[in-house]
Amino acid sequence: MELYSPEYFMNEALKQAKIAFEEEEIPVGAVMVCRNRIIARAYNQTEKLTDVTAHAEILAITAASNSLGAKYLTECELYVTLEPCVMCAGASFWAQLGGIHFAASDPRRGYGRLKEGVLHPKTKISRGLMEKESKALLDAFFKKLRN
Amino acid sequence: MELYSPEYFMNEALKQAKIAFEEEEIPVGAVMVCRNRIIARAYNQTEKLTDVTAHAEILAITAASNSLGAKYLTECELYVTLEPCVMCAGASFWAQLGGIHFAASDPRRGYGRLKEGVLHPKTKISRGLMEKESKALLDAFFKKLRN
Repeated sequence: MELYSPEYFMNEALKQAKIAFEEEEIPVGAVMVCRNRIIARAYNQTEKLTDVTAHAEILAITAASNSLGAKYLTECELYVTLEPCVMCAGASFWAQLGGIHFAASDPRRGYGRLKEGVLHPKTKISRGLMEKESKALLDAFFKKLRN
Repeated sequence: MELYSPEYFMNEALKQAKIAFEEEEIPVGAVMVCRNRIIARAYNQTEKLTDVTAHAEILAITAASNSLGAKYLTECELYVTLEPCVMCAGASFWAQLGGIHFAASDPRRGYGRLKEGVLHPKTKISRGLMEKESKALLDAFFKKLRN
């Protein structure tokens, strides 16, 4: 079995973010990885679904649980192009996610602004992978929105 | 038009919690009220849907947005039988909910354990309405689970 790198997975998440961009959604994408395999892909669809809960992370958790037939995702790692918000961090707590890798930070709306931990103690965090690419996509989106 | 009381709405939320109880879900129920009318009813379905994000509040927000065709629920008030968790509080932030009324408190998993505000500044909170009834239902559920 081919072993994929974190860069490969984050690039797949970035592809999802690019689909969001094309569909005029805030460009955030995610993939859920379980034992070196992508079991769910999702991008932000809050506009299309008229639903503030349709963040890439929430859709990826729901799809991954559906794929595995399991509520808890302790063996799964989420690759997401932007730091999760409080809602999504709270969802990852309930799912007991094995790990979250996020690209760009979100100082304003990211869960990291909270002083107290909201993640599950089992959830390992890594940040900054392909940050530049994710940020460039977000910046391009907001620039286009302003014009 | 008949004007309904907060007790009426919370009792409707409690009816949803009772459906959850019957279906062996943690008994939490919610209704979304917009201009004195219930536009969504939901109960916790995390077991049935194998999805940790299927809390009553999330389902009610999604259903209400669908009903109104609007992402923001500034004119809506959520009646829910248990204090929302961090995930659901985060969802209510994005929805800019007009108000949340919750019955029982949840010192362990409720958003209130966080020292920093996670709700939207527009969201008014009231607590304790029909707390006793909601707590009795939750206690009965966990007692049954242990036996």
